[in-house]
Amino acid sequence: MKTFNLCLLGFGNVGRALVRLLAEKSVEMRERYGIEWRITGVATRRMGWIASAEGLPVESLLRAGEFAAVASRGESRVTNVREWLAAARCDAMFEITSLEPLAGEPAVGHVRAGLEAGAHVVTANKGTIVHAYRELHALAEARGRRFLFDATVADMPVFSLFRECLPAVRLRAFRGIFNSTTNIILEEMERGGAFDDGVRRAQSLGVAETDPSYDVDGWDAAVKTCALATVLMDAPLPLDEIEREGIRGLDPESVRAARAAGKPYKLVSSAERADEGRVAARVRAEQIAAGDPLAAAGGTSLIIHFELDILPGLTLTAHHPDLQSTAYGLLSDFINAVRAET
Amino acid sequence: MKTFNLCLLGFGNVGRALVRLLAEKSVEMRERYGIEWRITGVATRRMGWIASAEGLPVESLLRAGEFAAVASRGESRVTNVREWLAAARCDAMFEITSLEPLAGEPAVGHVRAGLEAGAHVVTANKGTIVHAYRELHALAEARGRRFLFDATVADMPVFSLFRECLPAVRLRAFRGIFNSTTNIILEEMERGGAFDDGVRRAQSLGVAETDPSYDVDGWDAAVKTCALATVLMDAPLPLDEIEREGIRGLDPESVRAARAAGKPYKLVSSAERADEGRVAARVRAEQIAAGDPLAAAGGTSLIIHFELDILPGLTLTAHHPDLQSTAYGLLSDFINAVRAET
Repeated sequence: MKTFNLCLLGFGNVGRALVRLLAEKSVEMRERYGIEWRITGVATRRMGWIASAEGLPVESLLRAGEFAAVASRGESRVTNVREWLAAARCDAMFEITSLEPLAGEPAVGHVRAGLEAGAHVVTANKGTIVHAYRELHALAEARGRRFLFDATVADMPVFSLFRECLPAVRLRAFRGIFNSTTNIILEEMERGGAFDDGVRRAQSLGVAETDPSYDVDGWDAAVKTCALATVLMDAPLPLDEIEREGIRGLDPESVRAARAAGKPYKLVSSAERADEGRVAARVRAEQIAAGDPLAAAGGTSLIIHFELDILPGLTLTAHHPDLQSTAYGLLSDFINAVRAET
Repeated sequence: MKTFNLCLLGFGNVGRALVRLLAEKSVEMRERYGIEWRITGVATRRMGWIASAEGLPVESLLRAGEFAAVASRGESRVTNVREWLAAARCDAMFEITSLEPLAGEPAVGHVRAGLEAGAHVVTANKGTIVHAYRELHALAEARGRRFLFDATVADMPVFSLFRECLPAVRLRAFRGIFNSTTNIILEEMERGGAFDDGVRRAQSLGVAETDPSYDVDGWDAAVKTCALATVLMDAPLPLDEIEREGIRGLDPESVRAARAAGKPYKLVSSAERADEGRVAARVRAEQIAAGDPLAAAGGTSLIIHFELDILPGLTLTAHHPDLQSTAYGLLSDFINAVRAET
C-alpha cells in the first residue's frame, strides 16, 4: 500500500470530474491495486498555485464556495510550477489546463516540469503530443517516470491498447471520427436545421467551444490525427502536413440528401504509411456507406478503425462518451503509471 | 536481452501459424522488447514428447517431411508432460491442443503442469478458463508466473484490454457475436442456400469442425460467454447455467425475410449482472437492427459490446480474423508475460 500525492494543474470540468471519480473508486483502487491517494496541489489561473503536502480537503475542492478557503490554507509563497510541485511533494501530476492545443505551450513546459520534478505526468492536452512527444517521452524514460495521455483522443483507451495489448504489431493505417461537435451539427442539418442551429445545439450540450471554428474547420480532428500518427506510427507528423478541410463547405441540402441515401456525411480523419517512413493524413467530410467500419458510430459516438500488419482490421467504438469518460482516461493512466510501485 | 525456451503442446494449424509469426517478428521482439526465443519442446499425439534444451530447428518443424527427423533428435526417454517440460527447460508453454472444450481435461492438467514447472502458460483453450480459471490463476500468482489466454475469445485482445487498459471499471453487461461458422451458415441461407450448404461453406473455409454441431448448437458461443463472464465479471458461471439455443430452429425463409427487412439473424451471446453477484447469460439467434452496436459485424467478423459503470459503451470489432489472428493472440500473451523480465 502506498499513498500518492496528486497535483492537478487546471481545475475546470474535467478536473472536478476526475476528483469525483477518484473518490468514487477509492475503495477499489486500494483493495485491487494497493493505491491510496491524496490531493496535495491544485492550480488554476484564478486561484494561483495551491499546495499542501498534508493533503487538501477533497470535499471542499468540489464545493465552489469553499475553494477560496482551501486556497488560503495552502503554501502562500509558491509562485511557479516548480515551486508548486516541490511544495506539494508531487508523485503524479495531471496536466489538464484548457489551452489552445494548436500551441504546445505552456502545457509542454508544465509536463516537462512535472517529469523533471520526478512525478508521473498524465495529460488530456493533445498539444503536448503534437509538439513535443519524442522529447517528453524520452525525458520520462530517462527519469523512470511515465508520461501518459489516454484522455486525449476519442475517449477510448487507444494508446494503452497499442502499448499493452498489441505488442509487435505494425500499424499500417487508421480512419476515424474523432469530433463530437461536427457530428451534432451534421445531424442537426440532416433533421432540417441550419448550420448555426447545430452549433448552438453542440454548445448547449457542452461539447463545443464558444468559438466553434476549432471543431468545425477540422483543427480538433487534425490535432488528434497528428497525435495518433506520432505515437502509434512512430512518425512525427507536423500539423500543417495534414490536409484539412472542415464541414463549412457542406450545404444543408447535400447533407440531407446524403443521409436519405444512407450515406451520411461525417468529418473523417485518416492516415496511412506513405513513402520513406512518412505518413500521409487528412481530415475532411466523407460520406459513410452502410458497410463501412465507421458506419457504426451514430450521434456523438466516436470511432476508430485500425489496419494492422497482423490483424486484418480492428475497430473501437465509444458510444456517447461524456466528461466522465475523459476523467476515466486520466484515472486509468494514473493507475497504470503507479500500479507497479505498490 | 534474454533467450526464452518455448514449448508447444499441440502442433496443428495454430501451432504452425504461431511458429511462423515468431520467426516473422523475431527482429522486432529483440529490438523492441529484448526478447530472444528458441523452441525447445513440441508435443503432438502422433509424434509424442519432443524436447531438446539446445533448441529444435524451426525451419524443419514447419516442413511436414522433416518433422519425424526432428523428433528423432530429441530426448527419447520423455513419456509425460512433466518430464517433457523439464527436458525442454521450458520458460513459456503454449497449450494449443485441439480438444473438446466442453471437457476441461487434459488441457487443465497441462496448464497446471506448466505453471508448476515454473513456466508461463499461454493457451488458446477456452475449456481451461471455464473449468479451472480460479485455480489456475491462483496457481500462476503463487508461482509468480502468468496464465494468459487472449487467443480464446473473438480473436481480439479482450482480456488484456480489461487487465491493462481498463483498471477499476466494473463490467455490467456484454453482448457479442463470437462464432464464425454460424455467421457463414446464416449468410449462405440469406443468399438462398440451404443450411447444409452453409455448413459445407464453413468447412471449406476451415472454420467449422467436421461435426458442426458444436458451433451450430451454440456450444462454442456458450463456452466463450462463460469464459468472458468468469474472468471479466469475476463470476464463475457454470456452462449449464447459460440458456443456450442454436440456429437449427431457423428456417431459410425467416432468415431471408429478416435480412430483407434489414434485421438479419446472428447467433448472439449476452450476459449481465443479476441478483446476488450472479450473472445471467444466454446464447440464441437474435435479429440485429441497423442501430444496434452489433450491427457493425458482417461476414465472418466478430464483435463484442461492453457496458461499463464508467464508460457508457465500448464496442470492439475484429474484421475477418484468420488463423494468424489466433496465433497473434498467443504471441502477444507471450510477449506480455515476459517483457518485464528482460
